[in-house]
This record gives sequence, C-alpha cells and structure tokens, in this order.
Amino acid sequence: MNDLRRLPDRVLHDFCVGVFRSFGVPETDARTAADVLIAADLRGIDSHGVARLHTYVDMLTLGRINPTPRVTIVRETASTATVDGDNGLGLVVGPQANRIAMEKAMSAGSGWVSVRNTNHYGIAGWYAMQGLEHNLINWAMTNSTKLVAPLWGAERMLGTNPIAIAFPGREEPPIVVDLATCAAAYGKVEIANRTGKSIPEGWAVDRDGRMTTDPQGMIQGGALLPLGSDRERSGHKGYALGMMVDVLCAVLSGANWGPFTPPFALRQEIPARSVGKGIGHFFGSMRIDGFIDPDEFRAQIDDVVRTFRKTKPAPGTSGPIIPGDPEREAEHERRAAGIPLVPAVVADLVDVARITGVPFPD
Amino acid sequence: MNDLRRLPDRVLHDFCVGVFRSFGVPETDARTAADVLIAADLRGIDSHGVARLHTYVDMLTLGRINPTPRVTIVRETASTATVDGDNGLGLVVGPQANRIAMEKAMSAGSGWVSVRNTNHYGIAGWYAMQGLEHNLINWAMTNSTKLVAPLWGAERMLGTNPIAIAFPGREEPPIVVDLATCAAAYGKVEIANRTGKSIPEGWAVDRDGRMTTDPQGMIQGGALLPLGSDRERSGHKGYALGMMVDVLCAVLSGANWGPFTPPFALRQEIPARSVGKGIGHFFGSMRIDGFIDPDEFRAQIDDVVRTFRKTKPAPGTSGPIIPGDPEREAEHERRAAGIPLVPAVVADLVDVARITGVPFPD
Repeated sequence: MNDLRRLPDRVLHDFCVGVFRSFGVPETDARTAADVLIAADLRGIDSHGVARLHTYVDMLTLGRINPTPRVTIVRETASTATVDGDNGLGLVVGPQANRIAMEKAMSAGSGWVSVRNTNHYGIAGWYAMQGLEHNLINWAMTNSTKLVAPLWGAERMLGTNPIAIAFPGREEPPIVVDLATCAAAYGKVEIANRTGKSIPEGWAVDRDGRMTTDPQGMIQGGALLPLGSDRERSGHKGYALGMMVDVLCAVLSGANWGPFTPPFALRQEIPARSVGKGIGHFFGSMRIDGFIDPDEFRAQIDDVVRTFRKTKPAPGTSGPIIPGDPEREAEHERRAAGIPLVPAVVADLVDVARITGVPFPD
Repeated sequence: MNDLRRLPDRVLHDFCVGVFRSFGVPETDARTAADVLIAADLRGIDSHGVARLHTYVDMLTLGRINPTPRVTIVRETASTATVDGDNGLGLVVGPQANRIAMEKAMSAGSGWVSVRNTNHYGIAGWYAMQGLEHNLINWAMTNSTKLVAPLWGAERMLGTNPIAIAFPGREEPPIVVDLATCAAAYGKVEIANRTGKSIPEGWAVDRDGRMTTDPQGMIQGGALLPLGSDRERSGHKGYALGMMVDVLCAVLSGANWGPFTPPFALRQEIPARSVGKGIGHFFGSMRIDGFIDPDEFRAQIDDVVRTFRKTKPAPGTSGPIIPGDPEREAEHERRAAGIPLVPAVVADLVDVARITGVPFPD
C-alpha cells in the first residue's frame, strides 16, 4: 500500500477536463464528465473513476464515441421521455437526460427518462444525488455489458445493472442507495485474482455454470452471480432485478439489452447481434412536495436514520450503517487527503497524458 | 399431501366475497378484495391468499379495519398523489390507489401514488399486472410489519417490503417481477419448523444476531436476513432495497415505517411508537407509448424472453426461467384442478364460516 500515490481531486478533475477537451468535447460537457468521473473516485468507487479514463480515451480515439453529441428527445409526454444520446459519452448524455427528468418533475410532478444510444455513465449514485438539493427524489439505473448469469444459467447474459435512489434528510445526511444487482463486484474478483486468493462461494460460476471459488474460473469465461447467489438464497430475485433494469433502460428506449449490450472495453467480444442503439439508462425524478411537505419528509428521514443507527448490533459488528455512509466517509477523507491511486492507474494516466498531450502532474 | 383438499377458485372467491360482505364491505369492494386474495392462491403464493382470510376477519371483527373507507387524495400534481386509505382493507385501498396511478399515467404519461393509512394488500404482483392489458408498466411496493434485520443488526427493523413490476410481451407471456427484499420467505422458515428441518445458512439470525440454521432461532425473536444474506454476498444491498421500499411507501405518504409498522396479526407485538398512519404502499404506472411504440416494445420483450430461455443451462438445471413463469404455471394448473388447501387452512376457513355465518362449501 506504500506505493499508493495521492492526488487532490481538483488536480485529477482538471486533468480529466483537459483530456476530454483534447478530443473536442465542449468545455461545459468536459467539466460535467469530469465531475461524474471524479465523484466515483471521491466516493471510493475506484472502479468507476479515473481508472476508466484510459478506456474513454481509447473509445474516443477510435471514433467509437461521439465527442459532440446532439442529445435529442425522440418521444415525450408531460412526465416521460425517450432520449437519444447520439452515441455521446455517457458522462455527458447521462447528466443531460437526468436534467430532463428533473425539469419534467418540476412541471408535472415527476419525470421519467429512458435513454438509448449512449455509453458508460459512471456511478449511478451521482445522478440520484443531483435531486437532493432540490427536494427531488431521483432514481438512476443503467444497463451494461454482460457479466452476470441469470440464476440457473451458465453464461453471461446481463450487466451488473445498478439501481440508485437518494432521499434527503434535514439535519442527518441523505440516504443514498446505489447498488449493482449482482452478488459481488467484478473488481473484487480481479483483486482476489491479483492477490492469489479464492473468492467466496456465491459470487460466481465458471464457464460450465458450476459455482466456483477460483477467480480464474469466473474470469475465463465464467460469470458473476446475481444478488442472492443461488436458488436457496433467492438468486432469482437479483436476476429479476437485473432484468427489470435492463428493460427500463434498454427495451423501453430502444437500446441494446442483455447479452447484446456493447462492451465498454476494447478487448471484449462484440455481441452476436444488435437489437438497438448503444447502451441504455433510466432516470426518474419525483417532487417530494408532490406527495408530502418536504420539511416533514426530511424530518422523518432524520428519524429513520437515527432509528436505524440505534439498531441492536450483531455480534462482532458496530451495528447497521445507513446506505451512503461508507461513500460519504470516503469522500470526506479523500477531499482532505487526496485520491489514492494504485501504480497501475498512475501508469494508465501517464499513458493518457502521452496520447492526448495533456500534462499529467508529476 | 393426501389430506390436501382442492376447491375451485370460483367457489373460494364467492366465499371471500360473502365474508367481506358480512362485515358491510360494499359489493364492488368485496369482489375486488376477493380478486386480489384469490390471485395469490391461483399464483401459488399460498401465504398471501385465503390462508390470511381469518386474520382479515379478526381485524374487521375487532373494528381495527374500516369496512367502508373513504379513500381520498390528500395532495397531488399531474403525475403524483398521496392517498389516504381511511384505514380500509389494503385489498380495497390498494386497487383504488393503483387505479389513480393508472389514470394519471393516461393523462400525464406516468402516475405515482404513495398510500398511507392502509393495511395488508395481498400480492404486489397483482397490482403490477393490472397494467398489462393497457400498455402500461405498473410498479407496486408495500411495507409491512418488521421481520427483517438490517445487515449487521440483531433485531427486526424492516418488513419483507416487496417490489413488483410487469412488462407485457406480444406473443410471449409477460415478464412479471414480484420479489420480497429478504433472503427467504418467513413461510419457508415455518415449514422447516413444522417438518423439523434446519434452514440454510443465510436466511436468518437468532435473537442475538447470530446466523442460525435452526428455524426456532429465527421464530423466537430472531429475524430474517435481507436479500444477499451476509456482507460477503451483499446483504447490505437487500437491506438498502428494503429501506428504499419503506421510504417510498411510508415516509413519502406519512405512514408508519420500519419497526413502527403495525402488525397484521393479532398476537404480534404493538410497535413502541407511532410515526404515521397505518402501513404504506407505493404504486407507479407508465404509459409505454410515452417512451416507445408499444408494438415495438412488446416485440422486444418477446425477444428478451426467447433469448433468456435459450441461455446455456447450469449443470443439473433446465436453465433460467423468466420472472413470472412459476406463478403463471401454478395459475394454469390451479384454474383447472382447483386450489389446494392444507388442513390448517381448511380449519381456519371453517372457523371463518362459523364467525360470519357465510357457509363454507362441504
């Protein structure tokens, strides 16, 4: 852990802005994209932050992502819309579509936006949190490249398809739900693989569909398991949630779904057929005052937070935490001490600097 | 299994209508309530059907449920509303609130209704399925009496808080997601207890918060675990989903949430304090044509269903099933052969007949 390098979030943010700008991404879009990306690093979700910048750069270099998309509404009602992202960065398309959902909420009470023809959009939690300051309850989902087997399946058919939603408190911090619908993150399998450890039963199957504790078994053509893991512990529920996210993001918008969702990395297999455009997102936004007085709601959220913190703890734990606590604590620490970068990520960023000509801070 | 008695669903339905009518529930409401209740029996979710009729009767007898509620909208926008159920049967209030969500969807593209001052509403899937014939995507959630421990907690703090949503196909049957946010149903723990079997690791903790495989350990003051079970397999995700449902149903409407949700059975402990009115539901309805051409959507759902059915099967299985398959198959079988009732349920129904004077078919 000694070779971790720490950089202030502002420095990394500026670097990302410069990198996106170098591909012709407009200033405002570049800043937004950097906001979303750095939010992942600040909140401790390292897999979705600057660790992915090289892939964005690869896709932009190859012309596989449009740096100057014209994001359009292709169909709408007072409270719904389908948005075409014009194959832009998800980090640019996502925030625009999220804003459309919020604008519809302001005028119609709620807004629901399904997005097609877009790309990887960073952490779902960022989008959910955009409503907090405005007395809005925001939802965010996205589909992604196949990595997860449906229960009783022996192959990758679904992405890790996250669900996020955030609820503002008054004096207490918000409740921020942000979860992938699989039993464990792929990054955890990779870490076990790098450190030569086995993975717990319930995370993955191998290429034959057998439960495996060998990270290589999953990595080499195996699959992650859905939340719930096996039939006994309700793996069918995580699978159903993953399929729900896929339908809302992709079938509803006309994007690619399930095993046909295009990969985000260059080395991954190209899907057998195309059933839509790009990947898909789904955003929702609801005015709290469309249901209840926002002050009353926020006071009750405070009560929920305090009540759940007082739960009698299970042995060997300090008791339940509130969804969003770990990420907020990470952000607090990282804003002060800087964002820790492992050597592989530093090397990646140095390479991005070489490709783009944007200086990476020494 | 030989002492299972089978009765046609129509016969049970008529009996339920008669029972509700005997408490002064209006004819239309009694029919709707029976529809929802019998839907559970037809779909094989026995715990939510006529097995609960005696409890409804107990609550009505004691005046703890209002047989003639005046369901009112207490706040609304074009696409949202909070509904007060006037302490009616959830089986009556739920369908009315669901209809309000659908009406709002027809006029504003989507409708979102949070409900307070209501009671147990049967199976969430019934509400989700009401949209299928109308090219609507319906969502349904409810909170319920505490039974589930948050991850790292040693006590019951959340209900089993289900999430349901349904997507219509064109030629294929619909995808119907209907899942409780816990690792296993309480009914399964009860069955293990009755048959003297242990329960799998990951279902429950005992009263000290220790993982237990003894059904008595859970039943005697223990708690179910959230979907995901433990930290390693992401029990924090099921906990977060359960909390999300609780907030949408109860904090948003002004109902009781978390450990303060009133019990549905008579013998259960009364919560320490009241933080709202009754329990809460949450319904959503979205017009498919607010996003995409419904024919195109339904054709894609067919493609999803066929694609996932063709998934390479895991060893020892016939491959993944589509959410809603088991319930639809149960309904097909039970419509033809009748609804199987275990002796304890028959005895309950005979007792209901005695209390209400409505004859139970011999």
